[in-house]
Amino acid sequence: MNNSNYSLHADALIEAGRTIHAQGWAPATSGNFSSRINDQEMAITVSGWHKGELTRDGVMRANLAGEALEPDKRPSAETRLHCQLYQRFPEIGAVLHTHSMQATLISRIQKDELILEDYELLKAFAGIDTHQHTMTLPIFANDQNITRLATQVDDYMATHPPINGYLIAGHGLYTWGSSIKETLRHLEAFEFLFACELAFYPLRKAR
Amino acid sequence: MNNSNYSLHADALIEAGRTIHAQGWAPATSGNFSSRINDQEMAITVSGWHKGELTRDGVMRANLAGEALEPDKRPSAETRLHCQLYQRFPEIGAVLHTHSMQATLISRIQKDELILEDYELLKAFAGIDTHQHTMTLPIFANDQNITRLATQVDDYMATHPPINGYLIAGHGLYTWGSSIKETLRHLEAFEFLFACELAFYPLRKAR
Amino acid sequence: MNNSNYSLHADALIEAGRTIHAQGWAPATSGNFSSRINDQEMAITVSGWHKGELTRDGVMRANLAGEALEPDKRPSAETRLHCQLYQRFPEIGAVLHTHSMQATLISRIQKDELILEDYELLKAFAGIDTHQHTMTLPIFANDQNITRLATQVDDYMATHPPINGYLIAGHGLYTWGSSIKETLRHLEAFEFLFACELAFYPLRKAR
Amino acid sequence: MNNSNYSLHADALIEAGRTIHAQGWAPATSGNFSSRINDQEMAITVSGWHKGELTRDGVMRANLAGEALEPDKRPSAETRLHCQLYQRFPEIGAVLHTHSMQATLISRIQKDELILEDYELLKAFAGIDTHQHTMTLPIFANDQNITRLATQVDDYMATHPPINGYLIAGHGLYTWGSSIKETLRHLEAFEFLFACELAFYPLRKAR
Repeated sequence: MNNSNYSLHADALIEAGRTIHAQGWAPATSGNFSSRINDQEMAITVSGWHKGELTRDGVMRANLAGEALEPDKRPSAETRLHCQLYQRFPEIGAVLHTHSMQATLISRIQKDELILEDYELLKAFAGIDTHQHTMTLPIFANDQNITRLATQVDDYMATHPPINGYLIAGHGLYTWGSSIKETLRHLEAFEFLFACELAFYPLRKAR
Repeated sequence: MNNSNYSLHADALIEAGRTIHAQGWAPATSGNFSSRINDQEMAITVSGWHKGELTRDGVMRANLAGEALEPDKRPSAETRLHCQLYQRFPEIGAVLHTHSMQATLISRIQKDELILEDYELLKAFAGIDTHQHTMTLPIFANDQNITRLATQVDDYMATHPPINGYLIAGHGLYTWGSSIKETLRHLEAFEFLFACELAFYPLRKAR
Repeated sequence: MNNSNYSLHADALIEAGRTIHAQGWAPATSGNFSSRINDQEMAITVSGWHKGELTRDGVMRANLAGEALEPDKRPSAETRLHCQLYQRFPEIGAVLHTHSMQATLISRIQKDELILEDYELLKAFAGIDTHQHTMTLPIFANDQNITRLATQVDDYMATHPPINGYLIAGHGLYTWGSSIKETLRHLEAFEFLFACELAFYPLRKAR
Repeated sequence: MNNSNYSLHADALIEAGRTIHAQGWAPATSGNFSSRINDQEMAITVSGWHKGELTRDGVMRANLAGEALEPDKRPSAETRLHCQLYQRFPEIGAVLHTHSMQATLISRIQKDELILEDYELLKAFAGIDTHQHTMTLPIFANDQNITRLATQVDDYMATHPPINGYLIAGHGLYTWGSSIKETLRHLEAFEFLFACELAFYPLRKAR
């Protein structure tokens, strides 16, 4: 592996962590992020780090089966959810998992799925070019057994049209893209749309 | 054309982008901004750029018919909405189009128009010197056909009293002024007033 | 007058403007601030300036009757409301007038007065040492005739117990203290308490 | 006592103050923070300081009975609440008391206790490894008699299972941990969870 290449991925995750924490989308030590280096390895955040305060010590190399490639470091407890995405979709270059208040609330209020439609901002997602798109996000029940959760996600993907992200109830969002930059754009769009949907509940009622 | 003059307009758009994105008024790659250089040309944001991360590569010269004056750059997909304003009003020096949550929500909840009255902040708009002003903002249905949308806006303006901005449903705000600085002031006032109006819905109900 | 003394007051107003605008409490060019230099003069913000972008040009000397002591500068249109406070209370050293969303909303929803009680933060105000204090803020109707408004405020103060601030409906807050620093503390406390009160409306309803 | 050791604790409290005030969790001069230096002394904030503007003058040494170990400085009026925690639990290394809007609101709306459950973020607390944990926060009535309040807290702790923090009605949160860093993580998690709970009230109603 090219070490300087790893460095670029690691630094981009550190920078993404600062941006994401500053927005309030990864409070305390929540969230985990990864970036695929090549067809065998990824850079991923180490378990337990504060995402606004990541240093090189808070990022590590792992293979795409989720096994640590560095001694004395343990990758995020949710690494298998990242692996599931990289294994199923060769075009995915980065995965961001966040814990915003919006994602937490909407994932507990909605049952099974969230439908987003009639927002111009849907065009922020790769491959969507009109607000007349209907986007479906599945919502999975929270589960501390990550292997079981990864299997559930994989089964869903095998039997449904492509999705741009998914929610875990009371927990947060998983989204991805071809690069960290594109994934940050998807994340920013999702958080905006979740906030809009939440704001609509009382507004619809109050009118 | 005077290149250093272009540079001033371009840098002011870059700076405005940072300010606007930091407020959350142009999430992901949404929004587009322009500044009229003279009676034939404008500086306008390039299609697809993140507005908080604009560089000189993210801004370009175009004529007032919306045609690119630089090779290998494509102006914002909504350029014609900027052109419509510059062509109809010679006194307009800048146009800012934003996608805030407030504008998105209020443009979907209200039908056809939004009335703003009894706010001291209405005095932030050029030519308004009392809170006893009644401001009307038309709300147009969203449309991916920008030429058709520009014609609709132009027809509205031909048959109604002057306005300070307009909304596109589920999409955002267009506002303008004699300069980028004045337009930023109008934008700041609109976003404040939209947030106030949204907050009033449940409050009125709850009292 | 001691010029370097004026400089200290002017610079403190510039710094206060940045802090206040960053909080969203003086959008667009709203708000105005002053600091008493001695028993004859004050430093006050010039009319029309953006409060987050004040420079020495945006602050000026005026006497306590509100008359400009510098050529080519016009003090805030609401200067007489500052004068009323300095003239009635020799112990007042600074006045901050802000336009936050919270103050705008609560001043339109409440009639005549706002009662604040049972908040520990009431202890942030000079002279209050228990949460069991009941604070009354009068709310005056908005009026573009500032002389008439100043008289109304003065009449109120002549016939009521001491207050720590007042609201103008749909407009904003006036608060004061012995220094800019103390007045900023009062402002911070008021904005917090207004936000709490607003949040209570739907919560009380929803329970 | 090792003075340079004191310096580390004092500087960490100064830095924590800036972080906490920037989040809006200690408006005006509210809040107070401490860090245990050894089994006899702590660093604690001086009464009346703005927590976003702490300097070395705003922090002081005190013994674990709450007595000042520096002349001309008075520790926070709520020092005894810090002492109660250090005396009961030798493993506690830091105590943070904040006054956020969320804590103020939820502590007035809820009676006696707040139950937090089914949030992934509960795992941010030391010793909790599943979202299926049920966390109870007692809410004590506000009282300016701090000795009486400290006794009430101590009695509660003597007769209930371990807790991670407590609320004082209309006032704020007390939380603690083995270090300032861990306590900041607990604080960040609590503020997030309070905000979620508050947002749920109208949402549950609106559905």
